[in-house]
Amino acid sequence: MKHQTVETHALNRRGFLKTSGAALGAASVAGLASACRSLQDSSSSGMTQGAVILFQGDSITDAGRSRDPALTAQPNQSPALGSGYASLAAAALLVSQSAAGFKIYNRGISGNKVFQLAERWTTDCLALQPDVLSILVGVNDLWHTLDPRIGYNGTVEIYERDYQALVERTRRALPRVKLVICEPFVLRCGAVNNRWFPEFDRYRAAARRVADRHQAVFVPFQSMFDEAIKFAPPDHWAKDGVHPSSAGASLMAYFWLQAVRGKS
Amino acid sequence: MKHQTVETHALNRRGFLKTSGAALGAASVAGLASACRSLQDSSSSGMTQGAVILFQGDSITDAGRSRDPALTAQPNQSPALGSGYASLAAAALLVSQSAAGFKIYNRGISGNKVFQLAERWTTDCLALQPDVLSILVGVNDLWHTLDPRIGYNGTVEIYERDYQALVERTRRALPRVKLVICEPFVLRCGAVNNRWFPEFDRYRAAARRVADRHQAVFVPFQSMFDEAIKFAPPDHWAKDGVHPSSAGASLMAYFWLQAVRGKS
Repeated sequence: MKHQTVETHALNRRGFLKTSGAALGAASVAGLASACRSLQDSSSSGMTQGAVILFQGDSITDAGRSRDPALTAQPNQSPALGSGYASLAAAALLVSQSAAGFKIYNRGISGNKVFQLAERWTTDCLALQPDVLSILVGVNDLWHTLDPRIGYNGTVEIYERDYQALVERTRRALPRVKLVICEPFVLRCGAVNNRWFPEFDRYRAAARRVADRHQAVFVPFQSMFDEAIKFAPPDHWAKDGVHPSSAGASLMAYFWLQAVRGKS
Repeated sequence: MKHQTVETHALNRRGFLKTSGAALGAASVAGLASACRSLQDSSSSGMTQGAVILFQGDSITDAGRSRDPALTAQPNQSPALGSGYASLAAAALLVSQSAAGFKIYNRGISGNKVFQLAERWTTDCLALQPDVLSILVGVNDLWHTLDPRIGYNGTVEIYERDYQALVERTRRALPRVKLVICEPFVLRCGAVNNRWFPEFDRYRAAARRVADRHQAVFVPFQSMFDEAIKFAPPDHWAKDGVHPSSAGASLMAYFWLQAVRGKS
């Protein structure tokens, strides 16, 4: 818990360090200088003029987005971006930097595990040639093993292996893509009970290792929500423990933007 | 419209200029340098260790907050902060800077006009001794003149006079308070029809003059929503044209934080 709190505080610094590849120890960097350096390195955030930004993941990313091909084929179509963190982050980017010409897509699909992202990766990621690719996946990789009606028999080793392979494949096809790997998270309420732990923590750690191996920006959503529950109870952020409320999604969007833009 | 777009782009630069009192012309300042300088001046944002932050206004700020004295007497109580932009901005601050010890209150009351803020100002503002005071008021000052059931006979001159007096009184009692004046806004849908215009624009301009006279941070919410409707229709942001949806509130929180924190 203590470690997670520190992670939250170090979010922007870490985002910057990942972004720039600097070898400075996070703890040794003064906050202000670091934040300024992150701004100076903002070009490496991938948020360049006309950047294609793709959100990928499961239901948390999907968030009820339209499947109408007339909408999904075009960027920046509000119904095709859903109503979750991806849509809120997209709105903040499109409104605050309207001249930047960002092209934002959401291809999250409810229920997806990492191997299901891989199955549709050519169409739903590589073909879009993103400059910034954000992935949030992992909660179903565990949840579906706990639900006897689904009976998925994956393991954390399979999750990490598949995730690693997916990112390697992406790097080969898109060597310049800016990678954002979001930490899977749960709130301890609703459908989330003690059966999830400590196994869920191993999935989070695996996502973190994949991010570290590929110099991805890591967005520590679990650490963020661990702080958030000191301010309001778990079900304020996600009634069923998995799917964020509008308050949870808004907080995620804010943290996502801070991490990816290096606090700019 | 063109002018408003420019305002939106210049938001953080303007926030910084107001914050620091620098005499630089906004247009002449390079974006990156300005953003960095704003970070270096972040202490003047009022967001210092233990800062008391107070949100004041009408229903848009209120957003269904609890009136339970056991909750409203304490800072950072989620139900007492409502479910609008104030609560979302508070959550972002409390979670991303959990060690800062901010004490955040919401005293917005649905239906309030500026003279009604004045009536309860001793208790609901001055007694709390805010370090940062954010005010969003003005939509009812016009709306209630358009509704024959209410029959309020205020004018824009009365609004500006009362607003000016309220801010002067605040400055006398709290000379070091960091002032944030939010632009009143409407979306052209729901209850908002042509009868609102061009009069509503005069209320916005009056709020802007009050901000300028007092070196307040000005949060250009109307300009923000004017950009936002290029991305999604007006009722996506506020179904009735006045009260923001969760998407509208999330966008407001993001812009509020950017303006007040000087993009930090």
